[in-house]
Amino acid sequence: MRIGELSARTGVPVATIKYYVREGLLSGGERRSHNQVEYDEEHVRRLRLVRAMVEVGSLPIAKVREVLAEIEVPDRGLDGTLGVASRALSQHREPTGEVAEEDLETARTIVARQGWHSVPPEYGQVRALADAIGRLRELGLADMVDMSGQYARAAEMVAEFDLGLLAARTDRDEIIEAMVVGTVLGDAIFGALRRIAQVEISGRTFQRGERHRHSTSEE
Amino acid sequence: MRIGELSARTGVPVATIKYYVREGLLSGGERRSHNQVEYDEEHVRRLRLVRAMVEVGSLPIAKVREVLAEIEVPDRGLDGTLGVASRALSQHREPTGEVAEEDLETARTIVARQGWHSVPPEYGQVRALADAIGRLRELGLADMVDMSGQYARAAEMVAEFDLGLLAARTDRDEIIEAMVVGTVLGDAIFGALRRIAQVEISGRTFQRGERHRHSTSEE
Repeated sequence: MRIGELSARTGVPVATIKYYVREGLLSGGERRSHNQVEYDEEHVRRLRLVRAMVEVGSLPIAKVREVLAEIEVPDRGLDGTLGVASRALSQHREPTGEVAEEDLETARTIVARQGWHSVPPEYGQVRALADAIGRLRELGLADMVDMSGQYARAAEMVAEFDLGLLAARTDRDEIIEAMVVGTVLGDAIFGALRRIAQVEISGRTFQRGERHRHSTSEE
Repeated sequence: MRIGELSARTGVPVATIKYYVREGLLSGGERRSHNQVEYDEEHVRRLRLVRAMVEVGSLPIAKVREVLAEIEVPDRGLDGTLGVASRALSQHREPTGEVAEEDLETARTIVARQGWHSVPPEYGQVRALADAIGRLRELGLADMVDMSGQYARAAEMVAEFDLGLLAARTDRDEIIEAMVVGTVLGDAIFGALRRIAQVEISGRTFQRGERHRHSTSEE
């Protein structure tokens, strides 16, 4: 297909497609003549993957390139590839500054209490958790930290489904793609559902209050 | 305290504090003499709140200003303030482009199946959910959409804790601040915990595989 059709199929403007090719996120099409370049289904798929990372995951271009490069190393085992790609996807959310020792302790306690003994204590996301805990503590919202155990149980539920989806696949490229997309879109889906559930629950509470006031005024 | 101490207490550089004051995110300190401006505990608290939204929530400055303005409208009831602030916090994650009708249908079905009948069908986060569902569908990962029910149950667990924390507070300003911080830091905490849980579960699976291979080679 021509670049115009590729653009129409994926919703990515032609200029952006050309930019992605220049940045090495997408291989160039096959040149058929001096003014005709052909793209195929692989390009459609890759472009949608890039778009999910950029638009939904808000990943910087350099990070997208890193994730794609990790995916394409052919010799590494699947476990290694998943680990590296997952780390690349997570890293841009990790704190760059200092994290207080007491917050790291709290984060490690939450992880240990959950029985998560396979997690390396130096794992970057433990630092990300500690950073968020420190901010709650500074803002005097320590009771939210106590609640992290409840969050951890919900996170374990979600992670089990995530990995179940990978286990349902057999093709190496499909597994990796599902992991990348699942990580990025899974965050977006969970975030939206959390906000929808908040509206539902506060709506219910508010309506109860309304009905109560109403029935009181009728007495 | 002087601006230097305010900077040390909050970890925000002096130049950034001055920028926030110019942008209207923080009130100026009280001028005591031509070269001495005093800041107080309110500034420390406000600055930490702004920092959570900017650094953890990645909110653009204009959006932070909008959230703060909503918080400070004195006449609106608590329900109204929470609704508007929550909408301002969520909006920057809502899709700006078209969302396919079939994906909106799927999103509404997930919400209805969960029994969330207080949610307005036009709520922006339902569109955000539909947008993510559309991307999964385009990438041929429709089985992840089927999983949204499991995500929804986990999201309801988290939202119940979120609102429980608000219910535990009585002061209006504290409730609003807890909502803002909880929304922003709650996402960060859940995201970190989800990744940690993924490492744990895949680690367990991998170790089982290793042990299996090991015992086989000993035979």
